[in-house]
Amino acid sequence: MQRYFLKVEYDGRNFCGWQKQNGKRSVQGELENSLFKLFGESIAVFGSGRTDSGVHALDQAVHFDLKSLIPPQKLKLALNDMLPKDIAVTRAKFAKPSFNVRKDIKKKTYLYKLKCGAEKDAIDGNKITQIKFDLDFDKILEASKIFVGKHDFRGYTSAKAQVSDFNREIYELSITKKGKLFLFRITGNGFMYNMVRIIVGSLVEVGQGKKTKADLVKALESGERKFAGKTMPPEGLYLEKTYF
Amino acid sequence: MQRYFLKVEYDGRNFCGWQKQNGKRSVQGELENSLFKLFGESIAVFGSGRTDSGVHALDQAVHFDLKSLIPPQKLKLALNDMLPKDIAVTRAKFAKPSFNVRKDIKKKTYLYKLKCGAEKDAIDGNKITQIKFDLDFDKILEASKIFVGKHDFRGYTSAKAQVSDFNREIYELSITKKGKLFLFRITGNGFMYNMVRIIVGSLVEVGQGKKTKADLVKALESGERKFAGKTMPPEGLYLEKTYF
Repeated sequence: MQRYFLKVEYDGRNFCGWQKQNGKRSVQGELENSLFKLFGESIAVFGSGRTDSGVHALDQAVHFDLKSLIPPQKLKLALNDMLPKDIAVTRAKFAKPSFNVRKDIKKKTYLYKLKCGAEKDAIDGNKITQIKFDLDFDKILEASKIFVGKHDFRGYTSAKAQVSDFNREIYELSITKKGKLFLFRITGNGFMYNMVRIIVGSLVEVGQGKKTKADLVKALESGERKFAGKTMPPEGLYLEKTYF
Repeated sequence: MQRYFLKVEYDGRNFCGWQKQNGKRSVQGELENSLFKLFGESIAVFGSGRTDSGVHALDQAVHFDLKSLIPPQKLKLALNDMLPKDIAVTRAKFAKPSFNVRKDIKKKTYLYKLKCGAEKDAIDGNKITQIKFDLDFDKILEASKIFVGKHDFRGYTSAKAQVSDFNREIYELSITKKGKLFLFRITGNGFMYNMVRIIVGSLVEVGQGKKTKADLVKALESGERKFAGKTMPPEGLYLEKTYF
């Protein structure tokens, strides 16, 4: 058996998410289908983490074992030919048998793309989140500081999160504004279900004047979801970078 | 009754095309559904021409009649709220009762986006056509000249085209290259089924060295489809501009 490590890019729009679900189109399922077609083996593919329905990835990390020994560059080309247009392998290499994308990942960066303004954009409508109102950039920037560091993020997680330990560390949270476009980048050691989308949603409400930095602190300290903002939609979210 | 004129943008990926087809998702059908929800009337929507499944539009022209008199700007906002994310109204105005998008259109520009190179791009995989080989830009440019002017385009049309007159005039055909990206722009008084995709496919084969300019002239003069190149896939094609 040879273990392989891939980096994979996908457009999340037409997937139920990373994880296989009965009867639905998933990234994991498509990768396993393509490997089956190429090698005639049922191969279990592991990802560094799940992404939800509609969420994109520029750098999802993947590992799996093959009976065949194939040069990684060849594997990449063969998979790219076999996979549908909305999944691409960007890198492939051999990995040690002990390597595990879920356990060995050091940190991840998520990117959230948000565009303000009344003009609807149909061509990029599933690659960016569009909102009609303007946002106060300075207020958002000021409030964003509260998330950096080690915190219990219970208040910024969906009730559906199946975890017992809510502690995570955010290493960096940067926000840049280019005209009407806001780019949020959050790097941390791990993220729970909907965590990035709730953090961005809370900051957006601060930028709208609906919430204050103090409200966000309250959600963080009390662990109560109700003090945080709404969950942002998936289409603006990208798993931008995985670090090993 | 008041006639309205709209310009509409759409991402063709998840549509069976412009035209309504039983049980399939079409742009025309989505527009009619949204108008029905807004006004409670069954309204027939007319487009300046059909686009095929997977083909995008930046400037499709549309007209329809409403019993209600509503300011065009309000209609635009209301429709954009009601329509799915992959259709946007970019302009709306009143039209005369005699105005007809199909009859009054003067010319159209189609854009074809093509990227050469081995790297697969999943994020833009349905917005651009990707090919693995490089193309000879000068050969393509030289061959492209044969299409400009009035011609019988029988040899550059799908057998499925349901027309009796194959004469069309191409006013302009420009090709620009930015690194690995080729942009083909074709402006004419009308285009038959698959005509743009076959013209681009023929030029691509010239750029690959599979066909010569003389082959393309032969297809044009003989009207025989077999001398022209393959039909390019829909994902790189955009109805870029409609002129009235």
